[in-house]
Amino acid sequence: MSTNFINGEANTDYESLITPLTTPLLSSQRPLVNSTSQVAIVGAHVCPIESLDYEIAENDFLKQDWRSRGKMQIFQYVLMKWLLCFLIGLIVSLIGFFNNLAVENIAGMKFVVTSNMMLLNRFGMAFLVFSVSNLILTLVASIITAFIAPAAAGSGIPEVKAYLNGVDAPGIFSFRTLFIKIIGSITAVSSSLLVGKAGPMVHTGACVAALLGQGGSKRFKLTWRWLRFFKNDRDRRDLVTCGSAAGIAAAFRSPVGGVLFALEEMASWWRSALLWRSFFTTAVVAIVLRALIDFCLSGKCGLFGKGGLIMFDVYSESVTYHLIDVLPVLTLGAIGGILGSLYNFLLDKVLRIYNRINEKGVVYKILLACAISIFTSCLLFGLPWLASCQPCPSDASEACPTIGRSGNFKKFQCPPGQYNDLASLIFNTNDDSVKNLFSKNTNFEFQYSSILIFFVTCYFLSIISYGIVAPAGLFIPVIVTGASYGRFVGMLVGPHSNLDQGLYAVLGAASFLGGSMRMTVSLCVIILELTNNLLLLPLIMLVLLVSKTVADAFNSSIYDLIMNAKGFPYLETHTEPYMRQLTVGDVVRGPLQVFQGIEKVGNIVHVLSTTRHNGFPVIDEPPGL
Amino acid sequence: MSTNFINGEANTDYESLITPLTTPLLSSQRPLVNSTSQVAIVGAHVCPIESLDYEIAENDFLKQDWRSRGKMQIFQYVLMKWLLCFLIGLIVSLIGFFNNLAVENIAGMKFVVTSNMMLLNRFGMAFLVFSVSNLILTLVASIITAFIAPAAAGSGIPEVKAYLNGVDAPGIFSFRTLFIKIIGSITAVSSSLLVGKAGPMVHTGACVAALLGQGGSKRFKLTWRWLRFFKNDRDRRDLVTCGSAAGIAAAFRSPVGGVLFALEEMASWWRSALLWRSFFTTAVVAIVLRALIDFCLSGKCGLFGKGGLIMFDVYSESVTYHLIDVLPVLTLGAIGGILGSLYNFLLDKVLRIYNRINEKGVVYKILLACAISIFTSCLLFGLPWLASCQPCPSDASEACPTIGRSGNFKKFQCPPGQYNDLASLIFNTNDDSVKNLFSKNTNFEFQYSSILIFFVTCYFLSIISYGIVAPAGLFIPVIVTGASYGRFVGMLVGPHSNLDQGLYAVLGAASFLGGSMRMTVSLCVIILELTNNLLLLPLIMLVLLVSKTVADAFNSSIYDLIMNAKGFPYLETHTEPYMRQLTVGDVVRGPLQVFQGIEKVGNIVHVLSTTRHNGFPVIDEPPGL
Repeated sequence: MSTNFINGEANTDYESLITPLTTPLLSSQRPLVNSTSQVAIVGAHVCPIESLDYEIAENDFLKQDWRSRGKMQIFQYVLMKWLLCFLIGLIVSLIGFFNNLAVENIAGMKFVVTSNMMLLNRFGMAFLVFSVSNLILTLVASIITAFIAPAAAGSGIPEVKAYLNGVDAPGIFSFRTLFIKIIGSITAVSSSLLVGKAGPMVHTGACVAALLGQGGSKRFKLTWRWLRFFKNDRDRRDLVTCGSAAGIAAAFRSPVGGVLFALEEMASWWRSALLWRSFFTTAVVAIVLRALIDFCLSGKCGLFGKGGLIMFDVYSESVTYHLIDVLPVLTLGAIGGILGSLYNFLLDKVLRIYNRINEKGVVYKILLACAISIFTSCLLFGLPWLASCQPCPSDASEACPTIGRSGNFKKFQCPPGQYNDLASLIFNTNDDSVKNLFSKNTNFEFQYSSILIFFVTCYFLSIISYGIVAPAGLFIPVIVTGASYGRFVGMLVGPHSNLDQGLYAVLGAASFLGGSMRMTVSLCVIILELTNNLLLLPLIMLVLLVSKTVADAFNSSIYDLIMNAKGFPYLETHTEPYMRQLTVGDVVRGPLQVFQGIEKVGNIVHVLSTTRHNGFPVIDEPPGL
Repeated sequence: MSTNFINGEANTDYESLITPLTTPLLSSQRPLVNSTSQVAIVGAHVCPIESLDYEIAENDFLKQDWRSRGKMQIFQYVLMKWLLCFLIGLIVSLIGFFNNLAVENIAGMKFVVTSNMMLLNRFGMAFLVFSVSNLILTLVASIITAFIAPAAAGSGIPEVKAYLNGVDAPGIFSFRTLFIKIIGSITAVSSSLLVGKAGPMVHTGACVAALLGQGGSKRFKLTWRWLRFFKNDRDRRDLVTCGSAAGIAAAFRSPVGGVLFALEEMASWWRSALLWRSFFTTAVVAIVLRALIDFCLSGKCGLFGKGGLIMFDVYSESVTYHLIDVLPVLTLGAIGGILGSLYNFLLDKVLRIYNRINEKGVVYKILLACAISIFTSCLLFGLPWLASCQPCPSDASEACPTIGRSGNFKKFQCPPGQYNDLASLIFNTNDDSVKNLFSKNTNFEFQYSSILIFFVTCYFLSIISYGIVAPAGLFIPVIVTGASYGRFVGMLVGPHSNLDQGLYAVLGAASFLGGSMRMTVSLCVIILELTNNLLLLPLIMLVLLVSKTVADAFNSSIYDLIMNAKGFPYLETHTEPYMRQLTVGDVVRGPLQVFQGIEKVGNIVHVLSTTRHNGFPVIDEPPGL
């Protein structure tokens, strides 16, 4: 159901603003009933966060406008609706592809250079190059974010979700935010920080959609008459929904998962027409990405180009598991749920600490980002030395050891013929770590200690990395952490299970995603489209169910916690039971001021000038308070 | 948005009953506004089709009831909610599995016996056995349907969809209907009629859910106190939604597709909690089915047991297609859309003719079913003689020719070393035909003429088979027809395309499904889960988009047409623009009768006794008509 709220008083403690009034609906829902009692929202821009009109106010003026539209204008509207969706899909897929290309080339180059130095035993120099390049990249990301567009920091998913709920945080959809989000995400991810690019892609998609719907820029006189129909909150919200679907579709090459993500997690209200339009948008994304990947397979994209449409392919012709395997999988799901909710709890706490640091000024923000970057570089370069070198397996399916940027068997400091299993995970891009964790028939590749160190590192590093002043997603960190957890469980269960350890890693990722993000169908489809293993579906569903159920017992989803920490007055679909007993008088601060259906101008002026309220119920008769 | 309607007058011309009043919402949506103008629905059972309460009437009585519920009762309610979903999943998956098992064994046995006779050149005898066994099976299906539960005829999807919209057709959820639906579907599908089992599975699932929610049978004194909370329309509707999701999940072994099908096609109104519950239900289905298939792989299920979790696996490690392949795929989608909408048009016409025949009496219904069965048997046995025998390919991936029930290369009348390609398609179960059409690396297996004959036969046979008095689904017929169409297109494009003909068949099926059923995301996921080829996803999305867009230009979806033909007063989410100008007085037949907010009993008795209306607006003041 749609929701709408009135702001009781100008204050920043949004959490106290619980207003379950959904009354502007009334006028649109009963065209045939003659009634004079209405509630109007009298808006005033006092809060930095505005509320958007949720329903189109269906008054005589609007009806007159609709009736006066000619066929040509309706054609313009419909054509533009689809054209905008097409453009959103096209632009978002191009950005997503460019993003990937840049990250793989920058991070890849960094690892190649560092590895080559290590081959010559110049370890100090290698560390210097590695950490300094990371620091520079982090600095770029944090400085541009802090100075140019602070709204581009973080994942962006909570902001977009709040926007679709009717909460307009300032500056989240400006052209400046879009630009910084793209550049900042590329540099932050390339700098080996444990941050993802899916969340920023969702924000990017939403931003592209909102900007397109705005019809260019007034300042640069780039406006177009055909776009005037989209200058209302509802049409812009529809476009933003399509944009966020396109974002996930481009980040994970998962078009159906994108639609479902927008449906399940982002949109507060969903129309069937929107399903159809977001499906169209993500189809455009899928087709464009497929074409670009096709182009890159010919080797014209530098270090990018080996991946296909599926990011972490773990297809297997037959997956054998029986009833006996259900027990470890259930346990994995349950513990994953507990760890996921603990993750949310810790992230929330760290975020609140960071907020206090960040409030002290821009310099503190940037220093914090630099500290995290240096700490990360030390961990990434230092920890692999703890792992003992392993002899290369004789039946290895790929080169061992590898010196370049990717591969299952990284040489790191080891002598020829041996590899460092921890370095294969930690001294790598996140995408490649996930690939290694998911890889099949590598049951003896990793030592218990290495996987455990990697899991603990990822768990805490991702928690402290999220809040820095740079675009930073949560999907990939959660997947990496979950995959290492799952792989560890798989190694513990070992020969008692019929499942490959790579598949345990997939299930572990599912359990962490379920425990932290609390989605169901969309996560299921995203995992499916990421891994291409349909036979695992029953187990993935089982794990998601268990982990979400367990985690829901402790706290709410990570995005809800972040929205809460940011102070967005998000309205849930259902009111809490106790709210049924409340009246308007209970939720406004100070005395309640009401207007009659027909009111004297003098009264209105008086009330507006003597109170700081910016929303007033309009009534028929004095309420029986 | 939820919808509700009042019946203007007792009549059967439901289409004239357009009542865009959504007013019962008012009371629940404005708890804080003091107003006395309300509209009440005064129900009376005059129509055979009843309208259900769409929203819970949130009055003081209900609030009192909720407040008085103790912790124990709330625990009972929540536990039962999940337990019922679990039971729905369990029972529906068992029924679905039993259904498959029975069909594959009965139809398989029939084909084995017939083929063995043909091996001995006893063709007349073979035809006799084939057609008589088909006739007997059809007779069983039609007689039990006609005499015991006429509501079990047809797909059932339109009835369930109408139920979820608030339209309660008589007898659709009785125990009798459930039983006949299961037995009738098995016999009808086994009798080689071109009917599917997915639609009946959806109805079965919905039926199981509704019966479970009812809390046993009053007649047999099987009631349970814990189930008393589910005796309201909203909770029953939630259960039925989960049941229909389970139905698709069991029919296609497609759990995610089932959830999306329920969301996109079935439910008129969707809550996020429902997504979570239907996901749980279909997860149960997936896990139980997986366990049963695991059991059958050891060969204990007769002729069943070779299939895995994926019904029509067309996985390929790499699917090569480039920009040049997009043009034929677009054409395929567009023509598929035209053919799909023509299919809908013809099916609607045939259905209206059948309705007139069926109205003449039960005997006519059964005779019609018998005529269709005999006609089908003649076609299935007669048409393969038109095809010339083909020499077995030397590099065939499987036995050639085969004599048993399945296989790509059926011997039929051909001499040893040769096979009849048309018989491989037409003299087979529908599932096996689809498998053959989808099969890869069989580019030279079928002749143009055979595929064309098969396509035309399927197209018209499925149209005339649907309306008979037996449980009959549309999914599989549409898939078979579409697959043959796609394969034909693939053969025409031939060497100019990089795509395998089997993949063209998949795209053809997608185009027909899109053109006929007009779903998007759910069809996409169902096709994905049926065929396990994720790399084809961009093209499948493209085809679905094109075919739906083209077909929408001509008519509405097949289920909407059937609902229309059956006279269900289905209410769309959005009112037509012209309805905005209507008042209650415009849509009732006869003079409008209204009640005051406080009314004398005498007036009510007078109005009820002097009119045949069964719904009355209750108003504050006389409407300004």
